[in-house]
Amino acid sequence: MPLTAQELDRFADLVVRFAANVQPGQVVALGTEPGKEPLTRAIASAAYRRGAKFVDVASFDIHVKRARLEHAPEDTLEFVPPWYGERILALGEHRCARIGLSGPVAPGLLSDLDPARVGRDQLPFVAESGQVVNDRTTNWTIVPCPTAAWAELLHPDAGPEEAMDRLWEQLRHVCRLDEDDPEAAWRERLAALVGAAERLDGRRFDALHFEGPGTDLRVGLLPSSRWIAASFHTVDGIEHVPNLPTEETFSTPDPERVDGVVRATKPLALPGTVIRGLEVSFEGGRAVQIEAEAGAEAMRSLCARDEGAARLGEVALVDREGRIGPLDTIFYDTLLDENAASHVALGRAYEFTVAEDGDRERANRSAIHVDFMIGSPEVQVTGITRDGDRVPVLRDGAWALP
Amino acid sequence: MPLTAQELDRFADLVVRFAANVQPGQVVALGTEPGKEPLTRAIASAAYRRGAKFVDVASFDIHVKRARLEHAPEDTLEFVPPWYGERILALGEHRCARIGLSGPVAPGLLSDLDPARVGRDQLPFVAESGQVVNDRTTNWTIVPCPTAAWAELLHPDAGPEEAMDRLWEQLRHVCRLDEDDPEAAWRERLAALVGAAERLDGRRFDALHFEGPGTDLRVGLLPSSRWIAASFHTVDGIEHVPNLPTEETFSTPDPERVDGVVRATKPLALPGTVIRGLEVSFEGGRAVQIEAEAGAEAMRSLCARDEGAARLGEVALVDREGRIGPLDTIFYDTLLDENAASHVALGRAYEFTVAEDGDRERANRSAIHVDFMIGSPEVQVTGITRDGDRVPVLRDGAWALP
Repeated sequence: MPLTAQELDRFADLVVRFAANVQPGQVVALGTEPGKEPLTRAIASAAYRRGAKFVDVASFDIHVKRARLEHAPEDTLEFVPPWYGERILALGEHRCARIGLSGPVAPGLLSDLDPARVGRDQLPFVAESGQVVNDRTTNWTIVPCPTAAWAELLHPDAGPEEAMDRLWEQLRHVCRLDEDDPEAAWRERLAALVGAAERLDGRRFDALHFEGPGTDLRVGLLPSSRWIAASFHTVDGIEHVPNLPTEETFSTPDPERVDGVVRATKPLALPGTVIRGLEVSFEGGRAVQIEAEAGAEAMRSLCARDEGAARLGEVALVDREGRIGPLDTIFYDTLLDENAASHVALGRAYEFTVAEDGDRERANRSAIHVDFMIGSPEVQVTGITRDGDRVPVLRDGAWALP
Repeated sequence: MPLTAQELDRFADLVVRFAANVQPGQVVALGTEPGKEPLTRAIASAAYRRGAKFVDVASFDIHVKRARLEHAPEDTLEFVPPWYGERILALGEHRCARIGLSGPVAPGLLSDLDPARVGRDQLPFVAESGQVVNDRTTNWTIVPCPTAAWAELLHPDAGPEEAMDRLWEQLRHVCRLDEDDPEAAWRERLAALVGAAERLDGRRFDALHFEGPGTDLRVGLLPSSRWIAASFHTVDGIEHVPNLPTEETFSTPDPERVDGVVRATKPLALPGTVIRGLEVSFEGGRAVQIEAEAGAEAMRSLCARDEGAARLGEVALVDREGRIGPLDTIFYDTLLDENAASHVALGRAYEFTVAEDGDRERANRSAIHVDFMIGSPEVQVTGITRDGDRVPVLRDGAWALP
């Protein structure tokens, strides 16, 4: 399936009208990278056609980040100009829409650099964006953008054009653009995810137990942790879908009650580097040992970033009915890979997944938020009630919870 | 001369170390566009090697601007998100360096659009940048960036590679990169320009009289208008060269004493549109009639932007010893074309070219600043003293002022 201008416009309309749900008169912040111009322009055009007041494109160049990591003094690498955070907070104050484009443009560009230095520079992630997400003042979404480099990474034996066609074929499938009415298909899938979240909520589990090859991990939950699926609402009542595609149901762990060992079930692609064969041991909520076949130092550096960086801020369950898992493809892009499998995230919690103020104060805080995949059909997930009863949640990748 | 990575690095070092004069520890704001990645990255790398604390790249996509001009409601086209101006003001507060890259990436992209709508959207120009220039809180420069589209525009009969080689040959000549020591060559030329400015300052002319084909224009000067050449100093004493290349000496007109008619001697390239055969009549400082062979409406729309948009904010003299004029080439880029010939600018004045507070308050204010070229070897420039004496300033393109 070739990636034509018409296909791009159809995707852009789904992103603007359904996923981000841009309202007429809104300012739209669009985060992109050099190499993503075609979809960036299609989305900007779709947003203006939808009635957006302004489209504020911010383009982050990972080659410039590489120059910084190569040459800048170590003690400056965590510096972020104050106007970066002020802009993000202003997007919340002005009730803007926010659209981000995932998909690698230069895979491996940072992989030969000192991982301790790489871990110090979190850009393009800006810490204030976590606050804006928690404030629910913006309707936002992150969607995958086809790039030449990504196509080549996934289809190294095809020529550039054929590789792009194949990548687009995959993306249109997982984004349900191969349906006659993609929006209707998404509303159906979202209803199923919301249903699973409601069943989980009804049980008020004290903890989840993950068991599988190399994994024996208990993740405690806060008393008022809620399960959320990808239908979000802003404080003004605008519904939006934060990830497209999305196949997950997620909640907030107790950052002090995570114990055991977990083996990642997929590689984790950080900006410019890939962590393979990750294994993390937790004690009292803290990641006390981090090993990996590749990239362990980058992961350790991330976890040393601040007090909360070594604790969990998210736990998410993904069943096998999603469209990403069955492709059995590593996309080297967290947006897609995390929706292929159950996962946890180190770092900042999404506080809106906690109902009560007292619990919300206990949710994890950090400048980072890094997901890694721990689920597979071989990993069984069991809920543990406050009385210590064990209730099957996911068995062989399927929902087992009545 | 092929544009190699080594050539780019050599140019980037001249831009960072000489023109912008980036200081170790400074934040560098770098304004660029999609299509300018190679020089952007070379400059970022040069800045970090020089000791910059951070390089803040802002990339403006004229294709997104086109989508806005096509689809957004007319009454929103002057809207600029408040954080755009706040960022510029923060660059001043934090004493940053600023580097901008000129050179078209998509010539004519806006030329089929309604010029009245085009004139309402001044981006990427942000009004606050005029204040920061006047505050002299940033060391800044604008330099030309070779692009594929620019190469094709100037050398339509050559193939892409050959066209780029020829454009680079022109740019390296006008930027004096073909000298063994480009910085020394520039210091010599700047000394000559500063000398001309000092001789003009010594005369304290009341007005300048431009006479040539289609031109008979008197441009009044304020009593304390000063002549400035391209060696600037920040309030902290950092010397910088705001334009590279630069061949001009400029001052501030009296916005109420400009009378007569002036014919532009070169086409004027605005973002996405080209004004040809421009002729402007002034009465009492105001542009009362604007005609052109092409693009008159865009120019009229610009002049209607605000009260000061139809009055002059700059008058600049360029002699024929510069390197741009002798090439007899229209570059379709104001940075280069304005340095080929004497020119005036509609809109905002550079207040630092006025010595006394009372006069400074009379200098022109506007959201726009648009240069157009009025000089040529056929246009004679005469100074008029307060006593009405006439003193030759430029004759046949050469300085005539002893």
